[in-house]
Amino acid sequence: MSDLLRPASASDLVEQAASLLAALRAAPPLTHCITNSVVTGFTANVLLAVGTAPAMVDIVGESGVFAGIASGLLVNLGTPTPEQRAASLEAVAGATASGTPWVLDPVAIGALPVRTALAHSLAELRPTAIRGNASEILALAGLSGGGRGVDATDSTDAAIDAARSLAVRFGSVVAVSGPVDLITDGERAFRLDNGHELLTRVTGGGCALGAVMAAFLGAARANGNAPLIAVAAASLVYTIAAERAAEVSTGPGGFAVALLDALAAVQPADISSAARVEAGAL
Amino acid sequence: MSDLLRPASASDLVEQAASLLAALRAAPPLTHCITNSVVTGFTANVLLAVGTAPAMVDIVGESGVFAGIASGLLVNLGTPTPEQRAASLEAVAGATASGTPWVLDPVAIGALPVRTALAHSLAELRPTAIRGNASEILALAGLSGGGRGVDATDSTDAAIDAARSLAVRFGSVVAVSGPVDLITDGERAFRLDNGHELLTRVTGGGCALGAVMAAFLGAARANGNAPLIAVAAASLVYTIAAERAAEVSTGPGGFAVALLDALAAVQPADISSAARVEAGAL
Amino acid sequence: MSDLLRPASASDLVEQAASLLAALRAAPPLTHCITNSVVTGFTANVLLAVGTAPAMVDIVGESGVFAGIASGLLVNLGTPTPEQRAASLEAVAGATASGTPWVLDPVAIGALPVRTALAHSLAELRPTAIRGNASEILALAGLSGGGRGVDATDSTDAAIDAARSLAVRFGSVVAVSGPVDLITDGERAFRLDNGHELLTRVTGGGCALGAVMAAFLGAARANGNAPLIAVAAASLVYTIAAERAAEVSTGPGGFAVALLDALAAVQPADISSAARVEAGAL
Repeated sequence: MSDLLRPASASDLVEQAASLLAALRAAPPLTHCITNSVVTGFTANVLLAVGTAPAMVDIVGESGVFAGIASGLLVNLGTPTPEQRAASLEAVAGATASGTPWVLDPVAIGALPVRTALAHSLAELRPTAIRGNASEILALAGLSGGGRGVDATDSTDAAIDAARSLAVRFGSVVAVSGPVDLITDGERAFRLDNGHELLTRVTGGGCALGAVMAAFLGAARANGNAPLIAVAAASLVYTIAAERAAEVSTGPGGFAVALLDALAAVQPADISSAARVEAGAL
Repeated sequence: MSDLLRPASASDLVEQAASLLAALRAAPPLTHCITNSVVTGFTANVLLAVGTAPAMVDIVGESGVFAGIASGLLVNLGTPTPEQRAASLEAVAGATASGTPWVLDPVAIGALPVRTALAHSLAELRPTAIRGNASEILALAGLSGGGRGVDATDSTDAAIDAARSLAVRFGSVVAVSGPVDLITDGERAFRLDNGHELLTRVTGGGCALGAVMAAFLGAARANGNAPLIAVAAASLVYTIAAERAAEVSTGPGGFAVALLDALAAVQPADISSAARVEAGAL
Repeated sequence: MSDLLRPASASDLVEQAASLLAALRAAPPLTHCITNSVVTGFTANVLLAVGTAPAMVDIVGESGVFAGIASGLLVNLGTPTPEQRAASLEAVAGATASGTPWVLDPVAIGALPVRTALAHSLAELRPTAIRGNASEILALAGLSGGGRGVDATDSTDAAIDAARSLAVRFGSVVAVSGPVDLITDGERAFRLDNGHELLTRVTGGGCALGAVMAAFLGAARANGNAPLIAVAAASLVYTIAAERAAEVSTGPGGFAVALLDALAAVQPADISSAARVEAGAL
């Protein structure tokens, strides 16, 4: 374990995740998403299921205003049309001006030049959080050429240094999604072992998690929790729901449906028994 | 009850809703949708389930031609890209020229400037029907600043005057969606108590209803029913199917699937026993 | 039966379909889709379910590069925005330069002028395969004005001459989808009787098949199978899964979910018992 990655308490995370989920349902944060055309519907349904209010406002002339009203913002680069690219920059400016926390999801950067350039520009604007698979995090840190389309070709552990580097450089919480999820603010880190392989067999399994992080960051801002906790709590709630959904599914179609039901059903009290978290043990 | 809102017969509505559903299935109207990127797939699936033929034609150079061929048109402003804004105006011109009935759904107008301006311009073109939640109807009538993103912050009853005002001004049937649905042509009104809270937990729950209204308006035009009846019949069929879907669902994921199955299964003969309608009793 | 349509062995197809499905799962082809906004999510889920890696890269500046990396490409004209039109031409140039097989799906051409012109331009670039319903194939061959929106108004048999003509002219495998599927390279032909009517009650039922064809063409290129076999194998696997899904469904909502599960569950060994194929018997 690196010196920079000082232990943080797993039980703190579990406790705050439960209170954040309760807070989010008591006062649903308005979650602004600029996301790719493949997963817009699924992402909105995930946000509704978990208990927040989604709004997909991704045009120039509206996204900046709305980012100022919203509780949290997701900028996902999966299908970055010219309109969405301009709207993303406008939204981040609006979020920055009003202090709205925002998440950057640099989908499939590396080999694809337009989104790669945009991801680097957006990172310089200091996202509250950055979420990606290991290949995307390595590519954003300039340490590899990215994965194969949207799939990671690198392991979570291979991206630890890249995650820390991005976190320190941009003041962001960095989440590396994979069979194990790593979440760090550059000093402290959580390692989450919850989740299920079926999440990789449903389009938007990762993208929707980025939106849930934006929602939890909104609730955390209102509630006084650290961004590191908010991002890890979002991952915890999402992956615990995924495990429950997998228990009642026989394939990827049924799993996607069951995931929405499980996200709606999961309760703050369920988290402590289901969480498999290590703190600082990189 | 206002003088303008003279009683209309609830049993007439129930009877004509049944015959319209039968007519629609016997000769599926081609339903042209320009709708937002979040709900395109769900909307098309709702239209297929209820028994009509959907077509999402939303580009410049095609939408005007197609609106002339189609039986009904929906213009939904949920994610109004520049291309969709131009295509909407082209489509409405085509619909107007050929007498194709059309529905305006002014999603989330109020705080968002681009769509708000477009909604006002489109309203001046005299939609056959306008569908929105209470906050959207109030905003379109100039009586409030709109809701919170896509969510209503006002009750259906608070929007009665706005609905009547829009109906009279633009010659439109106005439908205010909510826990109770109000549908009026400015003189007569229906109040529908069918539906289920889970419709608000699925993205596109309201947007798809606008598309079903366009389909029923198409069938009504061929069949000689009044637009007021067509819009109320669409709401009735949709919300009755939602109640049946809720009976077999344990969460929002399963509900969305069950809604499609229920829309395909509901029969004209089912309507009279399930309908909870008041006529003119505002 | 025409002289041009010489018999080909149905048992060869069944055997190679099984080996192609196994090959595709052992080394998932990266499948590049430029497709319409209605079906992007469903198409990606179908590709994930069958065992391939989807990537929806549809912007200018990226689609050409990506078509060179991908194993197969789909160009579907369902909602052809200006950006997608330019990205399609760029992608086809990239695919052509690198030998990536590609599928053209000329959705709803005929009455709609923008996509019709684009479809003719793309056909001249010699797609590896062309997939459409009978009305679309007739319209692309210049033999009719197309169907009614996305619905065919012509039977598969009525499109035999058009299919052969396109195949010979552009060197393409042509697949006519319908209650019976016809697949021909202009000399040999297969006629598949698998499938289910519920595929027409789910949006993207046909569009997603075009994507599966692109995936199988990618696997076939790596494996040494003919494009005719790849396209027919994709249809076979897809329609056999549809039959299994229909057995456990009570409506179109449940069917779409069950189709994904069935696509994930179907095994190479299942094909021979379920296939209903005639070779050359037009």
